[in-house]
Amino acid sequence: MGNNAIVGQSGGPTSVINSSLAGVLQACQMRGAKRVYGMLNGIQGLLEERVCDLSGKLGSSMEIELLKRTPSSYLGSCRYKLPDAAQDPAVYEKLFAILDKLDIGYFFYIGGNDSMDTIAKLSEYGRQTGSKIRFMGVPKTIDNDLMLTDHTPGYGSAAKYIGVVMKEIIRDATVYGTNFVTIVEVMGRNAGWLTAAAALARGEDCEGVDLICLPEIPFHTDRFLAKVEAMQKERASIVIAVSEGVKLPDGRYVCELSDDTRFVDAFGHKSLTGTARYLSNLVARNLPTRTRSVELSILQRCGAHLASRTDITEAYQVGGAAAKAAFEGHTGEMVALKRLSNDPYQCTTELVDITKVANLEKKVPVEWINSYRTDMLPEFLAYARPLIQAELTPIYINGLAQHIVGR
Amino acid sequence: MGNNAIVGQSGGPTSVINSSLAGVLQACQMRGAKRVYGMLNGIQGLLEERVCDLSGKLGSSMEIELLKRTPSSYLGSCRYKLPDAAQDPAVYEKLFAILDKLDIGYFFYIGGNDSMDTIAKLSEYGRQTGSKIRFMGVPKTIDNDLMLTDHTPGYGSAAKYIGVVMKEIIRDATVYGTNFVTIVEVMGRNAGWLTAAAALARGEDCEGVDLICLPEIPFHTDRFLAKVEAMQKERASIVIAVSEGVKLPDGRYVCELSDDTRFVDAFGHKSLTGTARYLSNLVARNLPTRTRSVELSILQRCGAHLASRTDITEAYQVGGAAAKAAFEGHTGEMVALKRLSNDPYQCTTELVDITKVANLEKKVPVEWINSYRTDMLPEFLAYARPLIQAELTPIYINGLAQHIVGR
Repeated sequence: MGNNAIVGQSGGPTSVINSSLAGVLQACQMRGAKRVYGMLNGIQGLLEERVCDLSGKLGSSMEIELLKRTPSSYLGSCRYKLPDAAQDPAVYEKLFAILDKLDIGYFFYIGGNDSMDTIAKLSEYGRQTGSKIRFMGVPKTIDNDLMLTDHTPGYGSAAKYIGVVMKEIIRDATVYGTNFVTIVEVMGRNAGWLTAAAALARGEDCEGVDLICLPEIPFHTDRFLAKVEAMQKERASIVIAVSEGVKLPDGRYVCELSDDTRFVDAFGHKSLTGTARYLSNLVARNLPTRTRSVELSILQRCGAHLASRTDITEAYQVGGAAAKAAFEGHTGEMVALKRLSNDPYQCTTELVDITKVANLEKKVPVEWINSYRTDMLPEFLAYARPLIQAELTPIYINGLAQHIVGR
Repeated sequence: MGNNAIVGQSGGPTSVINSSLAGVLQACQMRGAKRVYGMLNGIQGLLEERVCDLSGKLGSSMEIELLKRTPSSYLGSCRYKLPDAAQDPAVYEKLFAILDKLDIGYFFYIGGNDSMDTIAKLSEYGRQTGSKIRFMGVPKTIDNDLMLTDHTPGYGSAAKYIGVVMKEIIRDATVYGTNFVTIVEVMGRNAGWLTAAAALARGEDCEGVDLICLPEIPFHTDRFLAKVEAMQKERASIVIAVSEGVKLPDGRYVCELSDDTRFVDAFGHKSLTGTARYLSNLVARNLPTRTRSVELSILQRCGAHLASRTDITEAYQVGGAAAKAAFEGHTGEMVALKRLSNDPYQCTTELVDITKVANLEKKVPVEWINSYRTDMLPEFLAYARPLIQAELTPIYINGLAQHIVGR
């Protein structure tokens, strides 16, 4: 049984993925890991033996506090997908040789459904070859699309960012009192959790968004234009939240109707962008109104200055729970969040089988969308509202929020 | 001499324009104005007699605190340009009749160089016709392009927003360690003050942006590509801040090279957008790297949750100084900010002739740009750094920053 632990971060950045790193690190240290290594750029860096000794780097409480407030992956990330062990055993032999050389007993991977695929494959290969290394998945994704967990760390902060800036955008959009349609593009390829968070903006001090378009609901451009036209008869300024991943009834993404360059990443995902711009131009061509498109872009995933303290705390908690589970003998599992109640909000952790999470996606329940397919129902608000509560004030130095870097 | 005051907001929103409204309102009340009216949608609304009585609306300290934290114009805005009085006296006759009916003695207009044109024309017409109404301009613009004032309220908060999010974007952009060029588009049609603020990001905890492209410097696409290629030999992730208004040597905007729909507003300004997207595609087509474009869009002007307390305080101060000046007999002037020292930062107000501000633009001094035209010099940082200092924490209720609405 190895004496050391190793932790990696994978997939897209979030505002709180470093809080999970802090949780893994501190729990491993408390439970007696001799060293805690960090993989630089995830499993891809590990294959090149690029690791660092975290024990020597993040020793002070101030460094841990800054780490919790630093967005994106402190260790760097990757989008590397492990091949099947049966087809390419050499990669696994190499990886396990490196892990043995580092005297690793505990392996943690913080990421989304693609990253859980990595944990599933490594733990399965370890089981088959009699390795004693324990492999644990730590959930992370702004998309909130992991199965078997009530929600994912990263989602609450992104949802809070979307709620706060949507209120600001609505204030900005109403200023001239003239016909104006603002279309805000939100991330979320196949699941509309982030776009749905735009519904949080409505309140005593805010009209809220006028239309929410989720990827779960087929998008009809003609019906969309008719809705916008009808709404604008009621009020001049219309603000619409639209997912980057809305699809036409024939399955094509709406943004494929525009003429922009598109990429496909190593996992075969299309890089989606331009949905709001396309729709904004469509409205401008067809209705008597000015229009504007806004892409929340990467700020919704790296806007740590607006992180939810609930989210930061839970991100830390799942990191710690993963370390606890590994030291108690678990492997091939992911830590999930289990909600006990909404009011008061109570949430605990549990362990779930990694193979039931890897490569799967959890969609927004259609029952949480109103019958006109324009807005979210109170059930969604009751679910999402607790996740955006409270703030962890950034540490401002010389006017700017401070981070920690230098792995 | 009229007993009442009236105040309007004009032009594009900022995070602190309502703080100036609070300053005007409270100073007028302290100095004995019987009523303080607000123009709804600026001078355009006033022409339709759409006004509100602010005294009855913003009476409590809590309402004033929320007003200071609410972005965009509480009273609504307009982009209406007054005709020349000689050509169209009817508009002026109508306006002054409305002002007399409301028993106005003091008229305040919060805005940028277009709005100062309104004050210049009204005060001149008033002088010619023997009106006793005093007309004062209150500066406001994120663009920081007003003459005769050290800086403009609104700029500090936008600069702070840009500094904070640029640091977050840089963290996000470095995560994969692979070739990546991120091009961030910043507002500022002809003056590069906002784009220059990207230079604030660099510090002990941040590499800073790699290239800054201001509209003051002619943009050569071939040199740009050569610079990016050279920089990427040094480091994989390159982050570039580019003004929406960068121009080719022949005078065309770079974004005119793209094929997007464009508008011209009532002042004849082209709506500029797509510069970063165009350059991002240009780099992707010519260099072996992935690219991404980010438009800071309207969030840089309405991101009140990141406002600079220095800026909010000064915005309030110029409002109060305008009221003081008007009650002391001044007219046809604008309140300007006059910097006394950088360290410690000290700033006071003074009055300047409105005709020397109206319709003019202040550019970034070329001496503050390095000789390679890639970065800002310490002179700029010494100028800008004091303006982003300190925060005015948003009032969060139920996870979201609270505003005040309902004029």
